[in-house]
Amino acid sequence: MTHAASTHTTDVAIIGAGPTALFAAFECRMLRLDCILTDVLDSVGGQCAALYPEKPIYDIPAHPSITGGDLIAALEEQIAPFNVPRLLGSRVSHLEGEAGAFTLKNERGDTIHAKAIIIAAGAGAFGPNRPPLEGLDAYERSGAVQYYVKKRADFTGKRIVVAGGGDSALDWALSLSDLAEKVYLVHRRDRFRGAPETLAQIEAKITAGAIEKVVPYQLHGLKGENGQLTHVDLIAMDETVRSLEADVLLPFYGLSTDLGPVASWGLETQRSTIAVNPATMQTSLEGIFAIGDVAQYPGKMKLILQGFSEGAVAAHAAHHVAHPDKALRFEHSTSRGQPGTP
Amino acid sequence: MTHAASTHTTDVAIIGAGPTALFAAFECRMLRLDCILTDVLDSVGGQCAALYPEKPIYDIPAHPSITGGDLIAALEEQIAPFNVPRLLGSRVSHLEGEAGAFTLKNERGDTIHAKAIIIAAGAGAFGPNRPPLEGLDAYERSGAVQYYVKKRADFTGKRIVVAGGGDSALDWALSLSDLAEKVYLVHRRDRFRGAPETLAQIEAKITAGAIEKVVPYQLHGLKGENGQLTHVDLIAMDETVRSLEADVLLPFYGLSTDLGPVASWGLETQRSTIAVNPATMQTSLEGIFAIGDVAQYPGKMKLILQGFSEGAVAAHAAHHVAHPDKALRFEHSTSRGQPGTP
Repeated sequence: MTHAASTHTTDVAIIGAGPTALFAAFECRMLRLDCILTDVLDSVGGQCAALYPEKPIYDIPAHPSITGGDLIAALEEQIAPFNVPRLLGSRVSHLEGEAGAFTLKNERGDTIHAKAIIIAAGAGAFGPNRPPLEGLDAYERSGAVQYYVKKRADFTGKRIVVAGGGDSALDWALSLSDLAEKVYLVHRRDRFRGAPETLAQIEAKITAGAIEKVVPYQLHGLKGENGQLTHVDLIAMDETVRSLEADVLLPFYGLSTDLGPVASWGLETQRSTIAVNPATMQTSLEGIFAIGDVAQYPGKMKLILQGFSEGAVAAHAAHHVAHPDKALRFEHSTSRGQPGTP
Repeated sequence: MTHAASTHTTDVAIIGAGPTALFAAFECRMLRLDCILTDVLDSVGGQCAALYPEKPIYDIPAHPSITGGDLIAALEEQIAPFNVPRLLGSRVSHLEGEAGAFTLKNERGDTIHAKAIIIAAGAGAFGPNRPPLEGLDAYERSGAVQYYVKKRADFTGKRIVVAGGGDSALDWALSLSDLAEKVYLVHRRDRFRGAPETLAQIEAKITAGAIEKVVPYQLHGLKGENGQLTHVDLIAMDETVRSLEADVLLPFYGLSTDLGPVASWGLETQRSTIAVNPATMQTSLEGIFAIGDVAQYPGKMKLILQGFSEGAVAAHAAHHVAHPDKALRFEHSTSRGQPGTP
């Protein structure tokens, strides 16, 4: 696909397009700031859409239960009246300029001129931790090895090896055991690590025979042909090898995260997070704000609901940068008008 | 009605039962802290339920549009699995003790023993500003004078005087003009004060004859019998009197707010707000937290969505007070289990 490099001029460039970024776009537009959403991924939604579109989330206020996918859909509907432009599928890598006149470029060569920047990059350019197995690539391409469940129904009647001992492994072992032919739960330790309620449910499924616990074992190899998986081989500490008949391997070994090029912009960082002043969400550089999982300040919890609030704070602060001459009349939730007016 | 004074023992006493308080209760229970909701009103929901149950709110994340009433219903559904106790219909007035061992009493004599306190009292014990008109009480009792619209359909075919020039007056004049026989919009100044889009809609309705603008006039008197309103009398600066035939008067003169007894608890306050450390939402007294509209810190905006985030921060901090011995394993939104387990 050829791509003509594009140029965009806006008030606020938002780096990232996950839930926090989407809501920050809403807050910007409510203050009549122009903005653009950018992401390395081809579509909006960040981890919610890419990693757990069908996983229910329970702590979004006034949503007793909402899946990652539905959360993104609701946020998309909320900003739909504003037609916020998007620049997707390429990572923003280059920054120059200063507050009021920044220039950003992505790796594809597109350019954004923006007065302020809101970094909502989540855990950065994230990816699953991949097990070091020979021939893994071919099984990844065929879908025999997957790192997240996009469509639960695809696993109906399958023999599944779930590897890992944390929340994702346990939750998916539970969920898929209702429709799979067989679920093996493989972990390198004897004990799983999860919420007490989840652990109790896992125990019940193991007792009922719906999940087979295979511990302590590590992944050792994959067998099959042309990307068709037939066996997942395991190895114990004492070198005992065991072979499980399986169609699919789902390793849940966490995400490897990386701030990426943003780390080179001269912002004050703390490990893979960016330090901000929570009163404005401004980073150590004027006009550059950070919100969501990537932001760090005293009292920070990596909750989506907190990222929403940070988006509101950052949008207000960005308004001062974009329009230093215009005072913002403060508005309550209940005195804000209907969105979508020009 | 006689009332036997009750006694409650809990981890966290929440003062207030508006949206921020309800979500704080959710966050407490997700951390397995016991809590109790208290309010001077007879039901939960605070201003959302009492003052604008049918008014849409547009800036609740992932709710493109939700009425105050529906927001409360959704939050109620979210905490339903926890069966959070409520102590309603009486104002909490008396405090003694210290972090880990507080005793609260309400004006009815009920007692709460709590380890920590979260004040989510909104604008305090709020009430509408009432116009100084002779015989007002009788018209309030009959419903001919109302300060908020509980059920929009009740106004079908009515002749309505809306008094005030701010957002509430404008929004309700617009909304009720679709079903009323007549809507007068009375304001003591020539110009209304509202969002540009709202003002444009008001102008259009005035031009179309659906709303009659009566400015600059103040309310002067009420005429009628046995609580049946027949006329609302107005007076101009030059003493000109004008009489409008009307069935209902809706004055929107804002809320009078009052921190109430909480003001005497020795907390550091700033006008009618309580100063907190935003990293914990703790007030100047250990073990007492404040969230929502009543809380003040650098970067505070009186947005419901920010109150939700504050509820999460306060619940975590309250956990340290209630269980100083137990470490909290931090949880992401997406690794939190399903609520409602004991």
